[in-house]
Amino acid sequence: MKPKIRTPFFEIGTKNYVYGDTVLEYALAAEEASKQYDIDVLFTLPVVEMRRVAERTSRLILIAPYMDTLRPGRGTADILPEGIYAAGARGVVVNHCEKPMSLPQIKATIERARELDMLVFACADTIAEAKAIAELHPDIINPEPSELIGGTGGGVSDMGFVRESIRAIKAIYSDILVEQAAGITNGQQVYDFIMAGSEAAGAASGIMKAADPVAMIDEMIAATRRAADDLKKQGN
Amino acid sequence: MKPKIRTPFFEIGTKNYVYGDTVLEYALAAEEASKQYDIDVLFTLPVVEMRRVAERTSRLILIAPYMDTLRPGRGTADILPEGIYAAGARGVVVNHCEKPMSLPQIKATIERARELDMLVFACADTIAEAKAIAELHPDIINPEPSELIGGTGGGVSDMGFVRESIRAIKAIYSDILVEQAAGITNGQQVYDFIMAGSEAAGAASGIMKAADPVAMIDEMIAATRRAADDLKKQGN
Amino acid sequence: MKPKIRTPFFEIGTKNYVYGDTVLEYALAAEEASKQYDIDVLFTLPVVEMRRVAERTSRLILIAPYMDTLRPGRGTADILPEGIYAAGARGVVVNHCEKPMSLPQIKATIERARELDMLVFACADTIAEAKAIAELHPDIINPEPSELIGGTGGGVSDMGFVRESIRAIKAIYSDILVEQAAGITNGQQVYDFIMAGSEAAGAASGIMKAADPVAMIDEMIAATRRAADDLKKQGN
Amino acid sequence: MKPKIRTPFFEIGTKNYVYGDTVLEYALAAEEASKQYDIDVLFTLPVVEMRRVAERTSRLILIAPYMDTLRPGRGTADILPEGIYAAGARGVVVNHCEKPMSLPQIKATIERARELDMLVFACADTIAEAKAIAELHPDIINPEPSELIGGTGGGVSDMGFVRESIRAIKAIYSDILVEQAAGITNGQQVYDFIMAGSEAAGAASGIMKAADPVAMIDEMIAATRRAADDLKKQGN
Repeated sequence: MKPKIRTPFFEIGTKNYVYGDTVLEYALAAEEASKQYDIDVLFTLPVVEMRRVAERTSRLILIAPYMDTLRPGRGTADILPEGIYAAGARGVVVNHCEKPMSLPQIKATIERARELDMLVFACADTIAEAKAIAELHPDIINPEPSELIGGTGGGVSDMGFVRESIRAIKAIYSDILVEQAAGITNGQQVYDFIMAGSEAAGAASGIMKAADPVAMIDEMIAATRRAADDLKKQGN
Repeated sequence: MKPKIRTPFFEIGTKNYVYGDTVLEYALAAEEASKQYDIDVLFTLPVVEMRRVAERTSRLILIAPYMDTLRPGRGTADILPEGIYAAGARGVVVNHCEKPMSLPQIKATIERARELDMLVFACADTIAEAKAIAELHPDIINPEPSELIGGTGGGVSDMGFVRESIRAIKAIYSDILVEQAAGITNGQQVYDFIMAGSEAAGAASGIMKAADPVAMIDEMIAATRRAADDLKKQGN
Repeated sequence: MKPKIRTPFFEIGTKNYVYGDTVLEYALAAEEASKQYDIDVLFTLPVVEMRRVAERTSRLILIAPYMDTLRPGRGTADILPEGIYAAGARGVVVNHCEKPMSLPQIKATIERARELDMLVFACADTIAEAKAIAELHPDIINPEPSELIGGTGGGVSDMGFVRESIRAIKAIYSDILVEQAAGITNGQQVYDFIMAGSEAAGAASGIMKAADPVAMIDEMIAATRRAADDLKKQGN
Repeated sequence: MKPKIRTPFFEIGTKNYVYGDTVLEYALAAEEASKQYDIDVLFTLPVVEMRRVAERTSRLILIAPYMDTLRPGRGTADILPEGIYAAGARGVVVNHCEKPMSLPQIKATIERARELDMLVFACADTIAEAKAIAELHPDIINPEPSELIGGTGGGVSDMGFVRESIRAIKAIYSDILVEQAAGITNGQQVYDFIMAGSEAAGAASGIMKAADPVAMIDEMIAATRRAADDLKKQGN
């Protein structure tokens, strides 16, 4: 069964900023914060560390940054869906701007993910692209202007973009979860995005390039909790 | 330090024929045979299982079927050299016919492998291609006519191809090890190739599609031992 | 100014079935039929023959099967938008199943086409893919199940698919023209698709592999005329 | 029959710096200089202008910057070898750093070029890559350190690189012609390279970004003539 996600949730991507034991260290920090604040956390990590992180955590929902669509057999360098599932992946990213995929490839990946009850986490650069990819009905969309990725753009998504992207995606399929991640570098931004209507926030470089990534993981997941509580008080 | 390999050696590729626990099972069988027959064994496996196999074996030389050349940072879906090294990989395949690479990409991969003291295992389809790739000075070349890969071609490389490919590669760099792998489906072929002058033999589909892959691993590594002994008797 | 297209129109793709003088021959046949039946005809042809066909025809709307998005400069093997425009192209195909493109690449191509007032002719495999690409607002969509392409699938699109694809695309942007092309091998099918509500029909292999391609071009464009007249009689 | 080339020859690449009528203008200037100085000139240009240039020139040897290896049929956006040959191409570039190709793809392109008696013009970045590609036996190799391409590197290849690349390539196949092109921006450099033993010189950005490209074409081809004459005087 596909993992259930309670909103608001938080998503962490290590990308390739770290490797080896550091991936595990951050995963354990995320696991700990997920427990402490009772927030669902998606953790996107290189497939090479998938199994070890899966064995050492129980609450994190582990996401592979990519998979191919082959079935068991040849394809020596491909990432086999069954292989990453066996190692603990419960979701997969499609269409990340650092790994562009063709439309037929996105569709095929979604179909393979469905077979294995894996979540599909889709990225999109603009609102038009978010709407295009929404038509393929992924579970989560992260509309993220590519100029804000990697912490080089000097800004976060503005609230107009946030609200419009949520509205546009929900108009196509209301059950798609919309995460905001572009340019988030502290807990306050996490709080603000969720208060503005986002069902999730996420960060990659905002954590990986922080002075203290472990502390930042705690700060951001704590902020998710605070927003969840304040939303509840407001009757949402 | 780059792993030293004693010849004749044997190479096993799981490709994506198996995944999860089965990869470990075959790795343990290879480890056991490597010990029993005192033969060096290269084991090529999906990166997702790299760490677990590394933790459970000590003699196998683990090879990744591919890596990218980025350095730690972004590149969310890339295979980071430092990442697979940290997980236990001590070599990498370049130019497998199922993952074609451009010449500049092959060169860049070799340079990254050199930085990390990883072996470079290069594939080639024809003798001309083997000579081309030999100029880039990988550690091992596996000249393997692509029509014989996957066990669909109904044959093994003939001895003329074997001898000519060894001669042509050694004429360029005599320290490149030459492995024959195309179409091998039993221990006798392993023995024959090594007796004909090959410094190594290998199999992927020949093991993965065997009735009893674990037994076949033993059979082929035992045959490597037998050939090693008979060569020694012949004074080679 | 972007070419205006009167509906119903007809589209011909030569793909690489023919080359050299034969491309010109078919273009002249299409030009002649376009005049005779007063039907707008889109003609998709390899860029290498673009200029000659443009110099010898005046009614055909010439479409390039692909372009890159670079601007004048390096990129030695790329297809420069300004280059094909100068040679006579007035439109470009995006996302043909024989040349898959990533979503960001499709968007970038559409933007470059807009700069040059070129039509964007988008292909899609399924209704979900057609809806996804419709969100990017091309001028024309050809929803064409890939198993029907090349005349190997033994059938044409059924009327249910035709009507549903038109409805789904028009619900997103009503000004997108919808062409049906999959599996068309004779004039009667052209007539039937247009009578069923399609604003256009098209053929590639259905013409290129016909016993007499020149006669088939005439037959299909004549059928487009017939459908146009009958629709008018019906008061559409 | 494959075009015969007399050495020293000169090669001009327009890349995508120019398009439309300007490509023809430069081709006519090259044609004129080729006649005046009796020097063989290879002219590499976008395929979209191939036919027009072929129709208006008779001495230039026209080179396509890329081709695919399909045979007549589907493959709508591919560059068909027969198609560019019919339009006048008599050679094709392989492995340009702006269009990297895998080794199997390079081999397949060379085979298709052989079928059509087209010249194969191979690029290489380093001496190791030049040797690798020499093993595939193209007609011409242009060893061109990529940092010197496009006139951004602020320098030309030094004479040590020139002599070593010629020596290394000729040791593999002595009939491969070696051209130097990296960073050439004036006639004197053309003269110097040829006097240093290069059988050819070439320029792309050195002409395309010159203040007066037509005059530079004349200057460089004149320099080729001067070098040819001086070599003859020296008894070479």
